[in-house]
Amino acid sequence: MTDVFDHPWLGGLFADPDMAALWSPDAQLAGMRAFEAAFSRALGGAGAPHAEAAAQAIEAVAFDMGDLRAGTGRDGVVVPRLVRQMKAAAGDAAGTVHTGATSQDVIDTATAMAMRDTLALIDARLGTLADALQGLDTRFGARPLMGRTRMQAATEITAADRIAPWLLPLSDHRARIAQARPRIARLQLGGASGDRADLGDRADAVAADMAGALRLENPPRAWHAMRDGVAEFAGLLSLVSGTLGKMGQDIALMAQQGIGEIELSGGGASSAMAHKQNPVLAELLVTLARFNAGQLGLIHQALIHEQERSGAAWALEWMVLPQMAQATGRALTAATALVDQIRRIGSPET
Amino acid sequence: MTDVFDHPWLGGLFADPDMAALWSPDAQLAGMRAFEAAFSRALGGAGAPHAEAAAQAIEAVAFDMGDLRAGTGRDGVVVPRLVRQMKAAAGDAAGTVHTGATSQDVIDTATAMAMRDTLALIDARLGTLADALQGLDTRFGARPLMGRTRMQAATEITAADRIAPWLLPLSDHRARIAQARPRIARLQLGGASGDRADLGDRADAVAADMAGALRLENPPRAWHAMRDGVAEFAGLLSLVSGTLGKMGQDIALMAQQGIGEIELSGGGASSAMAHKQNPVLAELLVTLARFNAGQLGLIHQALIHEQERSGAAWALEWMVLPQMAQATGRALTAATALVDQIRRIGSPET
Amino acid sequence: MTDVFDHPWLGGLFADPDMAALWSPDAQLAGMRAFEAAFSRALGGAGAPHAEAAAQAIEAVAFDMGDLRAGTGRDGVVVPRLVRQMKAAAGDAAGTVHTGATSQDVIDTATAMAMRDTLALIDARLGTLADALQGLDTRFGARPLMGRTRMQAATEITAADRIAPWLLPLSDHRARIAQARPRIARLQLGGASGDRADLGDRADAVAADMAGALRLENPPRAWHAMRDGVAEFAGLLSLVSGTLGKMGQDIALMAQQGIGEIELSGGGASSAMAHKQNPVLAELLVTLARFNAGQLGLIHQALIHEQERSGAAWALEWMVLPQMAQATGRALTAATALVDQIRRIGSPET
Amino acid sequence: MTDVFDHPWLGGLFADPDMAALWSPDAQLAGMRAFEAAFSRALGGAGAPHAEAAAQAIEAVAFDMGDLRAGTGRDGVVVPRLVRQMKAAAGDAAGTVHTGATSQDVIDTATAMAMRDTLALIDARLGTLADALQGLDTRFGARPLMGRTRMQAATEITAADRIAPWLLPLSDHRARIAQARPRIARLQLGGASGDRADLGDRADAVAADMAGALRLENPPRAWHAMRDGVAEFAGLLSLVSGTLGKMGQDIALMAQQGIGEIELSGGGASSAMAHKQNPVLAELLVTLARFNAGQLGLIHQALIHEQERSGAAWALEWMVLPQMAQATGRALTAATALVDQIRRIGSPET
Repeated sequence: MTDVFDHPWLGGLFADPDMAALWSPDAQLAGMRAFEAAFSRALGGAGAPHAEAAAQAIEAVAFDMGDLRAGTGRDGVVVPRLVRQMKAAAGDAAGTVHTGATSQDVIDTATAMAMRDTLALIDARLGTLADALQGLDTRFGARPLMGRTRMQAATEITAADRIAPWLLPLSDHRARIAQARPRIARLQLGGASGDRADLGDRADAVAADMAGALRLENPPRAWHAMRDGVAEFAGLLSLVSGTLGKMGQDIALMAQQGIGEIELSGGGASSAMAHKQNPVLAELLVTLARFNAGQLGLIHQALIHEQERSGAAWALEWMVLPQMAQATGRALTAATALVDQIRRIGSPET
Repeated sequence: MTDVFDHPWLGGLFADPDMAALWSPDAQLAGMRAFEAAFSRALGGAGAPHAEAAAQAIEAVAFDMGDLRAGTGRDGVVVPRLVRQMKAAAGDAAGTVHTGATSQDVIDTATAMAMRDTLALIDARLGTLADALQGLDTRFGARPLMGRTRMQAATEITAADRIAPWLLPLSDHRARIAQARPRIARLQLGGASGDRADLGDRADAVAADMAGALRLENPPRAWHAMRDGVAEFAGLLSLVSGTLGKMGQDIALMAQQGIGEIELSGGGASSAMAHKQNPVLAELLVTLARFNAGQLGLIHQALIHEQERSGAAWALEWMVLPQMAQATGRALTAATALVDQIRRIGSPET
Repeated sequence: MTDVFDHPWLGGLFADPDMAALWSPDAQLAGMRAFEAAFSRALGGAGAPHAEAAAQAIEAVAFDMGDLRAGTGRDGVVVPRLVRQMKAAAGDAAGTVHTGATSQDVIDTATAMAMRDTLALIDARLGTLADALQGLDTRFGARPLMGRTRMQAATEITAADRIAPWLLPLSDHRARIAQARPRIARLQLGGASGDRADLGDRADAVAADMAGALRLENPPRAWHAMRDGVAEFAGLLSLVSGTLGKMGQDIALMAQQGIGEIELSGGGASSAMAHKQNPVLAELLVTLARFNAGQLGLIHQALIHEQERSGAAWALEWMVLPQMAQATGRALTAATALVDQIRRIGSPET
Repeated sequence: MTDVFDHPWLGGLFADPDMAALWSPDAQLAGMRAFEAAFSRALGGAGAPHAEAAAQAIEAVAFDMGDLRAGTGRDGVVVPRLVRQMKAAAGDAAGTVHTGATSQDVIDTATAMAMRDTLALIDARLGTLADALQGLDTRFGARPLMGRTRMQAATEITAADRIAPWLLPLSDHRARIAQARPRIARLQLGGASGDRADLGDRADAVAADMAGALRLENPPRAWHAMRDGVAEFAGLLSLVSGTLGKMGQDIALMAQQGIGEIELSGGGASSAMAHKQNPVLAELLVTLARFNAGQLGLIHQALIHEQERSGAAWALEWMVLPQMAQATGRALTAATALVDQIRRIGSPET
């Protein structure tokens, strides 16, 4: 519990429970379980015996978490032990569990579902935030405001002009998400070396069946070693948090004494100065944007994913993606909350 | 001449003359000149006097580069002095030069044209590289190859399976470019504080006219402080170089003695060991991919572009974008040259 | 529990319990408690009443964690509520609790103690790892090995030559730690705006007293807005993990079939291929090194810590530092475990 | 000429001629020439024939730059062709040119000399800047100033309190440089695979001789694959630019209308607003700090330098190091110039 999202008190500032739920161990287990159940059923559709029994056993198994942890420490990945537990639970149906798939299929498909759901959550929140900003514009947009370039007073603008760069990119972000989704929310199915060879001529049918069941795109091949969809996803996250970081920086600057371009309610207290009203959420937006920008560089380092599977590059994604998703999710809830705190923007006089 | 792209001998490895030309000072000057000429003519279309004379003077002026340099050192941006020289050249028509525009309009519009042309060049080269890889697949795709996961021999695959992750993302990259282009190749026109106020009710007509003349999209507002298009552009560059970095890493691994999965011609010599054939271009692809990944993080830091114009964040783009473009361009020419060097891929026996 | 260090099964691979303990919420609370108790006692030494009673109340208070969390969400920092709870517990002695200090003093001093203890733990582990590598060199150093430059066979070297770049930097890292420690393990004491004004002429005596009690250096001023010690600390972490990442990359390359320069026991299993022995710890070292390299860039972004306190830059440290410490700690335990797994290095024949 | 340091007009803002000279192609050639001449002479001291003739030929050879460029494109490194030209110039003495050394020895030793000289230049400039800031403190330090935490007015401090975090780290940086220098300014001498095997029992004497001649430390082994000295160097650069970035950010904030905590002369003009005085140098410091922070992450990625020589990681250093040095150098000259522009800091009233 050292990371800020799960932290007992820092979580009060950083946590986004809805987004955390999408990337939680429970969600990861559920995603892996869904993969294996769908895989067994798809094998059944292609003629394998005991498929439904296998799927139901997979869906019902109570995992021995200590064994999963020990196995991950040894194997570098949870799937060998996870599958072993599933096979044990499946009894006679064990032959229709995981046979022809590989670790990466399981984990990446679960990640693809998490990415898909993350995009949906972000998309909805972008809509909510856009509405809030639109409302702000309606209320205060006409008020005069000093335009500031290079941190210097320039010419008079309106509050609407300051708000526009917070608002306008949001619809572009939604368009980006819609365009990128089919490249991101993709079934992963490749087997040992990613060539689907172990599935033989059943491969295409199994993949199509699974993609339907899991509501994922069905790409022509496994994307084990093609991580551009993951990197594109991370890029979307950082574009969103970057726009919000700009809004946060603006608001923190507007709230300065001597500038007074904005009036906020509910700012944070200081332990030393009772009179202060700190623009806590505005600063948080800057922090989250800078955090994601740095993490994005790492996800792009992980594009160099050697051969059929890079344990090193893959694990780097595990370290970074859930945090980027949470940082973005929290940036969106914080931005909307911050807009709610705005009592005035622009000149006090209309 | 300390950077690798312009370096007297390192340029032999890193230079991409076609891409360098798009981001060269000459191209930047040409882009700024094109902006100002189109702006004068658009003002003329909206009734300003002497517009064509102004435009022609702008197109003909021979710049005093020392003055531009000194002005940039003082003003932080070249445009004040550039405009002053243009106005001096325009004589009586000086009033129809730059009036109502601002530095950021000039520089960002020139950058938008460079980004547009960069995407076109990359798109074409992606096609060329895809053809080359397709040819490689045709010649050698059926040959057996040991699949390698986590750097360990896994199951036998074919050369086609190794080639696919180099080839398949290229068409996705082209689709990304097509989708993103309208968000990137955008006219910048906002005036002093980005609100087009100085253009009054002529603003929309002037913008539409200029966008047509300069072959750029005409967004509803200036994007002075909305840098998501720039960041999306940088993301495309790094996605491309990342895919090529994966290919380079694979080939460097395949070329190892004891592995022997590939036979290359034309590798580099060593100063100490005459027998060596170094996979120079393959390593270069890794270098360029890692470079771009790091720079991408910086461009996303620059999304936090405060108020109506951030001198600090803007200049960070100047430092990074031309290099990312060149790294990507060179990665593409190097990748195609590397494919040409492949004499065999997969087992020596068919 | 989405981060890899605290994750129910990924923790089996990534967790370092000893290091996690130094950065845990419990340790952070203990550090903050120690600061406040030492501060009260130091105030007492300078004449404040009820100091010992205040310190004992601080040491005994059972925190209401929900209140701390809610307060952090509102104030952006835990200290206002933490202090309020301490003051409530102190009763009549409340006036000698925190008066003259500020949030940053409390949190940064706790962080300085965590950094100090982290350096000690790393230093000890560097010694352990160096011994292990020395042992490896003693056993196998004389064996021939093919030198490899640019991933190509070069000239024959010995195993000792391959081991040396894993071993030699470790003593340099220990020297770096010893030199940097006094710039890192520093008491933070500044009060509201960092100038110690609220402590009046007691400031120096209070600071000296506290530094002694907390075993920290006593710098001439508060370092609220001077984060170079934090950045230097992060740099040390990434230097260490980088050296180990190089070792991990080497070992993963040496373990390739067809290369066979190393024999490992205890590699990880595959869910699809029973025969595989994956060099899991070697890959993990690469992952952790790349992770830290990216995070280091963020900590250096946070050097731009505006005015007397930047909420934005400060919170970025909170997001990154505990993870860098854990990544480094785990890299050290993994490296030592990996050395233990080496059954042979260099030629099978002596 | 696309990079900002060598750019015809952006160079007016970004160029640092003194630092550029240390990393220029001319300096690199001179460094490589010095290495080879010292090597030949050291071989002569160990008994090789024609050593002085070889050294003098090396010092006198006029390089064919086109050949160096073509060779670099093919070999990935300039040294094979450089040596070939040197040997041709040496005639009968060619056998005492480069024999027993390798490319990395030549380039890394030249880089070590550039790093050494860079540290000396930075150290001197840190002294100059500290004097300027001390002067500022003497003139204005007593003036009242509003302390600002989390971008909000806190308690009144003095100008000295604002200046201190700009000034105090400078002496720590100088101490860091002094401590790190012996780990950075190191002779590189290893031969083909870095083990000095080709020099036989002359190796130690040759190395000692060369280290003395080139004023470099003489480490016990080649550091071909131990890049921690390079990364430590980069870390020092970014620590320095980070401190200056904080100063720049502060000054840009202080110069805001409505804040007015500082009065600057000589700010930059705007192309649209004649009245503006932009804090150009202050913003530049922020830009340079953020740039270096990002590059530092890349240099730490390059710590993962596989086997005896990584072409990929090595070339990444070439792309980044000269730019980091120039960014740091320019940050120092800009900071000193900016201090000179300060007409007042703190309250207009004493």
